[in-house]
Amino acid sequence: MTTSKLAFLLAKRAQDAASVLAQLPSVKKIKILRDVARRMRGSVKFMLAANRRDVETAKKHDLPPAMFDRLSLNESRIQAMAKAVDDVAVLPDPIGVCQKRWTRPNGLKLERVTVPLGVILIIFESRPNVSSECASLCLKSGNSVILRGGKEAFHSNRAIAGIYQSVYEKHGVSKAACQAVSTTDRKLVSELLKQDDLINLVIPRGGEGLIRTVASESRIPVIKHYKGICHVFIDKNADLEQAVQIVINAKCQRPSVCNAIETLLVHRAVAGRALPAVCSALEEEGCELRGDAETRRIVGKSVSPASEEDWRTEYLDKILSIRIVKDIDTAIDHIRKYGSAHTDAIVSKDVRAIQKFVQQVDSSSVMVNASTRFSDGNEYGFGAEMGISTDKIHARGPMGLEGLTSYKYIVRGKGHIRK
Amino acid sequence: MTTSKLAFLLAKRAQDAASVLAQLPSVKKIKILRDVARRMRGSVKFMLAANRRDVETAKKHDLPPAMFDRLSLNESRIQAMAKAVDDVAVLPDPIGVCQKRWTRPNGLKLERVTVPLGVILIIFESRPNVSSECASLCLKSGNSVILRGGKEAFHSNRAIAGIYQSVYEKHGVSKAACQAVSTTDRKLVSELLKQDDLINLVIPRGGEGLIRTVASESRIPVIKHYKGICHVFIDKNADLEQAVQIVINAKCQRPSVCNAIETLLVHRAVAGRALPAVCSALEEEGCELRGDAETRRIVGKSVSPASEEDWRTEYLDKILSIRIVKDIDTAIDHIRKYGSAHTDAIVSKDVRAIQKFVQQVDSSSVMVNASTRFSDGNEYGFGAEMGISTDKIHARGPMGLEGLTSYKYIVRGKGHIRK
Repeated sequence: MTTSKLAFLLAKRAQDAASVLAQLPSVKKIKILRDVARRMRGSVKFMLAANRRDVETAKKHDLPPAMFDRLSLNESRIQAMAKAVDDVAVLPDPIGVCQKRWTRPNGLKLERVTVPLGVILIIFESRPNVSSECASLCLKSGNSVILRGGKEAFHSNRAIAGIYQSVYEKHGVSKAACQAVSTTDRKLVSELLKQDDLINLVIPRGGEGLIRTVASESRIPVIKHYKGICHVFIDKNADLEQAVQIVINAKCQRPSVCNAIETLLVHRAVAGRALPAVCSALEEEGCELRGDAETRRIVGKSVSPASEEDWRTEYLDKILSIRIVKDIDTAIDHIRKYGSAHTDAIVSKDVRAIQKFVQQVDSSSVMVNASTRFSDGNEYGFGAEMGISTDKIHARGPMGLEGLTSYKYIVRGKGHIRK
Repeated sequence: MTTSKLAFLLAKRAQDAASVLAQLPSVKKIKILRDVARRMRGSVKFMLAANRRDVETAKKHDLPPAMFDRLSLNESRIQAMAKAVDDVAVLPDPIGVCQKRWTRPNGLKLERVTVPLGVILIIFESRPNVSSECASLCLKSGNSVILRGGKEAFHSNRAIAGIYQSVYEKHGVSKAACQAVSTTDRKLVSELLKQDDLINLVIPRGGEGLIRTVASESRIPVIKHYKGICHVFIDKNADLEQAVQIVINAKCQRPSVCNAIETLLVHRAVAGRALPAVCSALEEEGCELRGDAETRRIVGKSVSPASEEDWRTEYLDKILSIRIVKDIDTAIDHIRKYGSAHTDAIVSKDVRAIQKFVQQVDSSSVMVNASTRFSDGNEYGFGAEMGISTDKIHARGPMGLEGLTSYKYIVRGKGHIRK
């Protein structure tokens, strides 16, 4: 079979399964997901064996330690994965929800009711638990999913998808509702990205390179964020103790993720008091600092000079650039110019400054006196996360079940005709 | 200047204007739109003169009469256009609306608040009032708009955009909030479609050819519908008098538009009673009929044979294909297979049949005992319409102000950091 034919068949099977999933009653979806969680708990050995094959291949290829950590499963990670499925199971059903209901002067009664999107293609790297997160969210929202994980996690992903499929079959749902795609054939992804009549949405999760390739190739709408250049702005009326805690957390708790900050902006009026405390705390955490001239005058030579390029860089590492700004407007301008519209925070006690920041910073999440690290589907209470969007179309910010729905209008008349 | 540089500048200016529009208070937007309406009423002569130039050029090019009618302005059409602007002015402001508000167990307070999309590019054919509809909806929703109308309406569109621009300037809003683009340079559209960093959404309105070209070229998300293959299904328990009225209205009131029907499906149990009445009424309206063998046995030779191709055809004319189906499931299958997910109607008195149809027909609008012709932003009460979407991403069905918004999350803490 040609790759293009294979892509068509995969997508067509997914679409056929989707029309059944769209009609599944809530109770049945809960039962299926609970059964998946139970099956996972009973399949620990099987999953560990599959994962071991991936880990052994990875060892041969000298993967970096961080990648190893993301790839490896153990019993407690599998238990956590099963619990996450149980958590998704009991979330409110996002499908069939009447979002609005109104009556027109002519007596027509309108309703807007949520429906599934149809078929979701998710393309991701390394972490095998992404398979399960996405599969559970898609089932709950009545969508078919095609999982295309990284090749380093191939056996792990296949084992997880296999658990979903065997439970689906037991409940009379087609296995095509959750298909894991071979990772050896790169051309298959390109062919899948052409199936815009069958696949409704693509979500690439991974590095900027992967996302750019998918976005440029795809004929299907893509939900994405290229990078997270997030900021904390310490306003002149900030609680400085809070500011230190928030900056440390936002930079150092997990520097490799998209909602960690890359640049700290400090109001000139408090720079002299704030920066020494912030910088020494950052240095204690092993964080490299790069600052503008004024920052270096205040903090000293442990801060290396920041270039224009630094303001545009997502370090994904323990490096922070620092700039002193003369007022909040300059901070907002900096964020507009260099930010990625992902997540930006203000630390301030001044209600008017907060209001201005919140209104004028055009990012998917704006934090007030809280760490940017909270920008996350789980932290927002969405149960799990399909991805994060910095675009403004369809879904923005952390995307949970609601982002996996569309709607239809139902219009009821009594023989109404248009004049 | 190169075309690519020109496209960049147009889009960049639109984006700069958008950041101001996003902050405009509701009261100011109302004032501006009312002023636009007033200015239109005072510019009837100016607008008619501009339109006359287009009409005269069109005469030279022998445009078909239907095109003439769409292109021509007269005083009452201009008055209607001005009234439509006044109507949009007083719609509720779609921006800054808190859609949700919740508190997490850790005390973080979240809000989801609507924001404008940014810059909208609209590409349309002939009717000059589309310029004004789109410009008013975009101002009301805080978006910049780039209008690219058909070349046959060039002077009319420029006059309308000029009225918006001069009112904007009077109110201190940049003219770049509403730009009408020259239509002589085809390459400019291609270059605009590459500005995905500056333009947030493209809406092509016109024939299928235009829409397919835009969708295949664009790097920017597109809201679209390729065609409207809409159906009426007459169920076995239909009120037959209603059925006749609805079919006539849905087919003949304005056959050239996307929410007119192309195919009539009739339940076998009522075909013998329903079809003769329906068909004679259609023939009285001058409608050509094409049917399956059973339809022809019932109605006679005035119905020509329908081929497989007919089920897939959007006639946009007074032609209707007719098929008799053995049950509601076959009707639903037909609509799934041949329909365009635009608008489909059931005529029935049976609550269970209605429920089944409404749930299983996966179209953007599903009508119950009402004509498909109601599938329209004005008829739904949206004030005006930016377009109709048969995709499931972002906006579906008739798209009004709400489809021109996105949202952001605002998260308020008290020094919250993530553990």
